[in-house]
Amino acid sequence: MAHLEDYQNAFLMHLSSKISQKEPRNLYEPIEYILQLGGKRLRPILSLMSADIFGGQSEKALDAALAIEVFHNFSLVHDDIMDGAPLRRGKPTVHEKWDINTGILSGDAMLIMAYQLLESYEADTFAQLSKLFSKTAIEVCEGQQYDVDFESRTDVTIAEYLQMIKYKTAVLVAAALKMGAIIAGTSKKNQEAIYNFGLNLGIAFQIQDDYLDAFGNPETFGKQIGGDIIENKKTLLYLKACELLEEADRQQLIHLFDIHPNDASEKITRVKELFQTSGAADFARTEISRYTTIAFEVLDTLSIADSQKNILRDFGTSLMNRSV
Amino acid sequence: MAHLEDYQNAFLMHLSSKISQKEPRNLYEPIEYILQLGGKRLRPILSLMSADIFGGQSEKALDAALAIEVFHNFSLVHDDIMDGAPLRRGKPTVHEKWDINTGILSGDAMLIMAYQLLESYEADTFAQLSKLFSKTAIEVCEGQQYDVDFESRTDVTIAEYLQMIKYKTAVLVAAALKMGAIIAGTSKKNQEAIYNFGLNLGIAFQIQDDYLDAFGNPETFGKQIGGDIIENKKTLLYLKACELLEEADRQQLIHLFDIHPNDASEKITRVKELFQTSGAADFARTEISRYTTIAFEVLDTLSIADSQKNILRDFGTSLMNRSV
Repeated sequence: MAHLEDYQNAFLMHLSSKISQKEPRNLYEPIEYILQLGGKRLRPILSLMSADIFGGQSEKALDAALAIEVFHNFSLVHDDIMDGAPLRRGKPTVHEKWDINTGILSGDAMLIMAYQLLESYEADTFAQLSKLFSKTAIEVCEGQQYDVDFESRTDVTIAEYLQMIKYKTAVLVAAALKMGAIIAGTSKKNQEAIYNFGLNLGIAFQIQDDYLDAFGNPETFGKQIGGDIIENKKTLLYLKACELLEEADRQQLIHLFDIHPNDASEKITRVKELFQTSGAADFARTEISRYTTIAFEVLDTLSIADSQKNILRDFGTSLMNRSV
Repeated sequence: MAHLEDYQNAFLMHLSSKISQKEPRNLYEPIEYILQLGGKRLRPILSLMSADIFGGQSEKALDAALAIEVFHNFSLVHDDIMDGAPLRRGKPTVHEKWDINTGILSGDAMLIMAYQLLESYEADTFAQLSKLFSKTAIEVCEGQQYDVDFESRTDVTIAEYLQMIKYKTAVLVAAALKMGAIIAGTSKKNQEAIYNFGLNLGIAFQIQDDYLDAFGNPETFGKQIGGDIIENKKTLLYLKACELLEEADRQQLIHLFDIHPNDASEKITRVKELFQTSGAADFARTEISRYTTIAFEVLDTLSIADSQKNILRDFGTSLMNRSV
């Protein structure tokens, strides 16, 4: 079994080999740019790992892994336009470096290229991968729409929020793993189980992302602490705090999520206090470990050797242990 | 063999049956809106007709026909954003009625839905249709990029222009016909021939569109005469006139395509004169009939009954006879 870095290196080599200087340059240059901006490459690594674990050859999953990564980057390019985000991984976003029209059209081409990367598989596997891919892609769009809708709603429930992050984030993690399983030719039962492992781990990962955004270690988290608070983003912490706080504090929190002070440091401090004293921070930690536990329980149902299960468990554990 | 209206009615019924009130409404409502705005539905009709002509059942081509139409409308939604177009078929465009973000995301979902519509075919047919679809879709994106690039270039050749309209318009007409042929299970040779018929007819159709925009009958053309001239669009007429005109007239034409007068009537009159006197208008008419003739010659190579070929010939003739 390969190490994580081996998967990452194999993936990056495959990515380089598939990036060619195609014409028209104004369409393809932004695509090469965003694909080479870096990132952890977690999703494609999961496809390779999954193919390996189910007795396939991870090399056979390289095209599917790249399809997942190209799709993920497509969604970043279009989401960054919608969010008006100037930076991605510390570099200008595509629509900032070029313009919005370029971001739209290059993104469209990436979505199509992701489908084309699946064409190297024989018809039956191709059909399975393509159907899973489309189902996942449409769910990611729906998740993005719910996220947009929630910005202007004041009655979002925690169940709705969890559904949103499931669609926007977790289904792609789950699909990345299931694609590896399909390519390895494992049983439908194993395919479903690895999908559910990914789904629950993906939800845990996103709640953790929300949590770390407020309570992470600024030196290791990589993003600005309090970013969600500055942007008044209604994450699980906010929704749960609103539910748990007494009326006076609740009104203060709602007020704080309605203003945009020039210096946000006081606001961040007070919001974090309210997240803590309300019990919302504890709730988030409990939810993270609950979804992680569900993911690990799903692992037990897989018909593979324990040594293989442990690879997934170790990966999940390392993912969930980032500077909480 | 069915009449055109029968194909159209069958298609519209299928479209209605596939449109359901899905959630989230802010994602799916714009999709339902644009798909029901109307239009001639030429491309899906071609898929149904092609399936019929090659001995298949046109009903089996309904999902592919809808995939083509959904894709076509996806490209309209995103192109309208890029062009800043306020109206489509006399009604507000999606980004006007909602906003740009809605146009982007609903468009993305339509592209994915088009792929999903192909899932009803068995794996081998699905793989063939999906690959043809992706190849076509990426070419349409490339054509749109060339179109955008040409706006800021002053050295566009006629060969480049023809390549652009081939990608932006003709390949989708060709793919619509080939999909019907694939579904009917006809030979690869027939599949290629019907594709080439569509490609040449599509190019003729687009040049005719450019021609009618300047010289069409205002009562039957349906669009404002001179629209391309007002927008300084470098169509075949402009490019050829630049090539043929003496220097003084050429400079005048270039100047006219650099200004935006409030009342464009004088500009339109003078540009049309230059298109005529240069010989560019004659050239466009010759090209229309040249590509139409090539298309009809390709028909002769099809291994089907002459009566079937005549249906395609009649369709092509009626298409090319619109108020020239």
